[in-house]
Amino acid sequence: MFAIAITLLVLEIRIPEGTLHRNAELLEALRELTPRLVAYGMTFAVVGLSWLVHWRRYAVIRTVDGRLANLNLCYLAFIAILPFPTALLGDYGDLPAAVVVYACTVSATVLLGAVSWLYAVRAGLVEDGVSAWRGRRGASYSLPVPLVMLGSLPLLAVVPPPFVELSWLLILPALRLVAWRFDTDPVVTG
Amino acid sequence: MFAIAITLLVLEIRIPEGTLHRNAELLEALRELTPRLVAYGMTFAVVGLSWLVHWRRYAVIRTVDGRLANLNLCYLAFIAILPFPTALLGDYGDLPAAVVVYACTVSATVLLGAVSWLYAVRAGLVEDGVSAWRGRRGASYSLPVPLVMLGSLPLLAVVPPPFVELSWLLILPALRLVAWRFDTDPVVTG
Amino acid sequence: MFAIAITLLVLEIRIPEGTLHRNAELLEALRELTPRLVAYGMTFAVVGLSWLVHWRRYAVIRTVDGRLANLNLCYLAFIAILPFPTALLGDYGDLPAAVVVYACTVSATVLLGAVSWLYAVRAGLVEDGVSAWRGRRGASYSLPVPLVMLGSLPLLAVVPPPFVELSWLLILPALRLVAWRFDTDPVVTG
Amino acid sequence: MFAIAITLLVLEIRIPEGTLHRNAELLEALRELTPRLVAYGMTFAVVGLSWLVHWRRYAVIRTVDGRLANLNLCYLAFIAILPFPTALLGDYGDLPAAVVVYACTVSATVLLGAVSWLYAVRAGLVEDGVSAWRGRRGASYSLPVPLVMLGSLPLLAVVPPPFVELSWLLILPALRLVAWRFDTDPVVTG
Repeated sequence: MFAIAITLLVLEIRIPEGTLHRNAELLEALRELTPRLVAYGMTFAVVGLSWLVHWRRYAVIRTVDGRLANLNLCYLAFIAILPFPTALLGDYGDLPAAVVVYACTVSATVLLGAVSWLYAVRAGLVEDGVSAWRGRRGASYSLPVPLVMLGSLPLLAVVPPPFVELSWLLILPALRLVAWRFDTDPVVTG
Repeated sequence: MFAIAITLLVLEIRIPEGTLHRNAELLEALRELTPRLVAYGMTFAVVGLSWLVHWRRYAVIRTVDGRLANLNLCYLAFIAILPFPTALLGDYGDLPAAVVVYACTVSATVLLGAVSWLYAVRAGLVEDGVSAWRGRRGASYSLPVPLVMLGSLPLLAVVPPPFVELSWLLILPALRLVAWRFDTDPVVTG
Repeated sequence: MFAIAITLLVLEIRIPEGTLHRNAELLEALRELTPRLVAYGMTFAVVGLSWLVHWRRYAVIRTVDGRLANLNLCYLAFIAILPFPTALLGDYGDLPAAVVVYACTVSATVLLGAVSWLYAVRAGLVEDGVSAWRGRRGASYSLPVPLVMLGSLPLLAVVPPPFVELSWLLILPALRLVAWRFDTDPVVTG
Repeated sequence: MFAIAITLLVLEIRIPEGTLHRNAELLEALRELTPRLVAYGMTFAVVGLSWLVHWRRYAVIRTVDGRLANLNLCYLAFIAILPFPTALLGDYGDLPAAVVVYACTVSATVLLGAVSWLYAVRAGLVEDGVSAWRGRRGASYSLPVPLVMLGSLPLLAVVPPPFVELSWLLILPALRLVAWRFDTDPVVTG
């Protein structure tokens, strides 16, 4: 599912066939693809990291009950829909509505992943060795993306959309902060 | 297969690039996507639950004979084609023909899943512990979708298509009824 | 790979959005989709059965050498490209060129599958219990499709293309004949 | 991921529906698809061989640390994006910019695969039996593609793009040379 969603993202990156005839026109068309490539890279990072985390979490989940199955289905529905807000941001990244839709969808996706993980830990569906501390740590890694993205939306009232998108780079130091707080490597832990 | 069909659904949810220039236009275009999003969610629920059920059923299937392989291929052919009626319902949900095509395709899909499961149980292809009772229970969970959807089609003669689609919400209490009848959780049992 | 190719087939089956406004128009558009649905079903059957056969063959392949890996990559390249001739046949099934392209691509695909299987048996890459007889039997099941399809192409000179496509139904009794000759069920054997 | 990227390549190979009415026109349209088919075949070979190599490498990787996970995610991002430069080369193979984009993307993909493999060997993430010699050998197989492709780009200043693409055939003898140097079969070794 993660792999398919990631690969479908690239379908949005294309140049219409048969409309260009000179090299300068093609270079110009490639340059205009930049916002899409940026949106592709950003969503790729989100989905790719979610994939790693999902894998690692499921390695310690012992059994699945009805509620966890439903939570996971919702989570996958959001993963599967990410190509849509990505294309939206790539095409209309200068309009506030696209930024709001992207930030909300990505935040909801990441939060749903954390909710299903927390539920699995609380409901005792994980292996015995997994502590409540590890449950909290896993959920904490899901906070920077929604906090920064949703927190940046009020800025849309005062600065142009591209600056708001730029502020999302704060997610990287925020992730480092969580890693420092829990004294672990953010990638290799769920 | 299930994952791919689900992910392809989202390809229908898109806004043509380069045609909008103001935020109000984009908001309007997003609002017009609502019927597609509803159709996406509905088919996602059908395919996602079928996936869970398929997985759980196959966990107890011991061996596959020629007939079961053919039945499953037909079943997967219907799963794979679901993006088509979904797009149809999303685009033309106010026309009776789209409602009929959607209801018939989804019902046929769910029924085929039940038929292949019943065949496997009857032909003794499942593990020894699986009772005929569990076979009936599994098949019963496949009844609400076709019963409600096909049963709603005559209403097309008297009410507008969107009301017919609304009546499909009856599937949820019907599923609960089956669960109550068999005294089990509908999600975690095949 | 098989699953993805099958699922992508359905992307060709669609009705342009926003161009129809009355139920009668939609019914007419659905009726015009029939040739595509037939092409979809036909390729689905070819890919689906190839998938089953591929799976069963690989269950007895013990090791893979460089040549078998290359043969398989070519085979998968043909499987992956099948959505193209399928769309061609669905759109232009009344033109001889589309029929020729479809028949040649499908025949080459099936033959390549047989060649890689025969190579694996001859080169001793299969498990010890697999006899040369089973190798011949597996390859024989790959003969009806190319024999009937390629054999029908000369008919294009005298009858309209749809009749040539109709003659492909002869594949079914031909498969039965092979099954009778080897005294086995065509589906459950590689 | 590899399978999905390969299968999506074929979406670019298509003939617009409903625009042709005579067999001669269809033959002409098919003939015009040739550059796309060539681009498809070339990328299929790159992705297919990378897939085999990736599989074989991962069979001896014992554990994955954070850095290797990140390297692999980058590698998969490049694999996933290959349908874009492939379509570009198929449509605009006579313009230098398309040739540059294709050569750079494919070279970066192959190099990233080699870097992640070398990192895994150096960081001791592979099984005990894997020697440094095997690490070097694996990386050496990744050299011909970037060396030939990037090395051919200066030729764009003096010869037309199609001749530059033709020079990429040198990759085949270069691969043989590496195989001869390490005295092994290029396909069955990582």
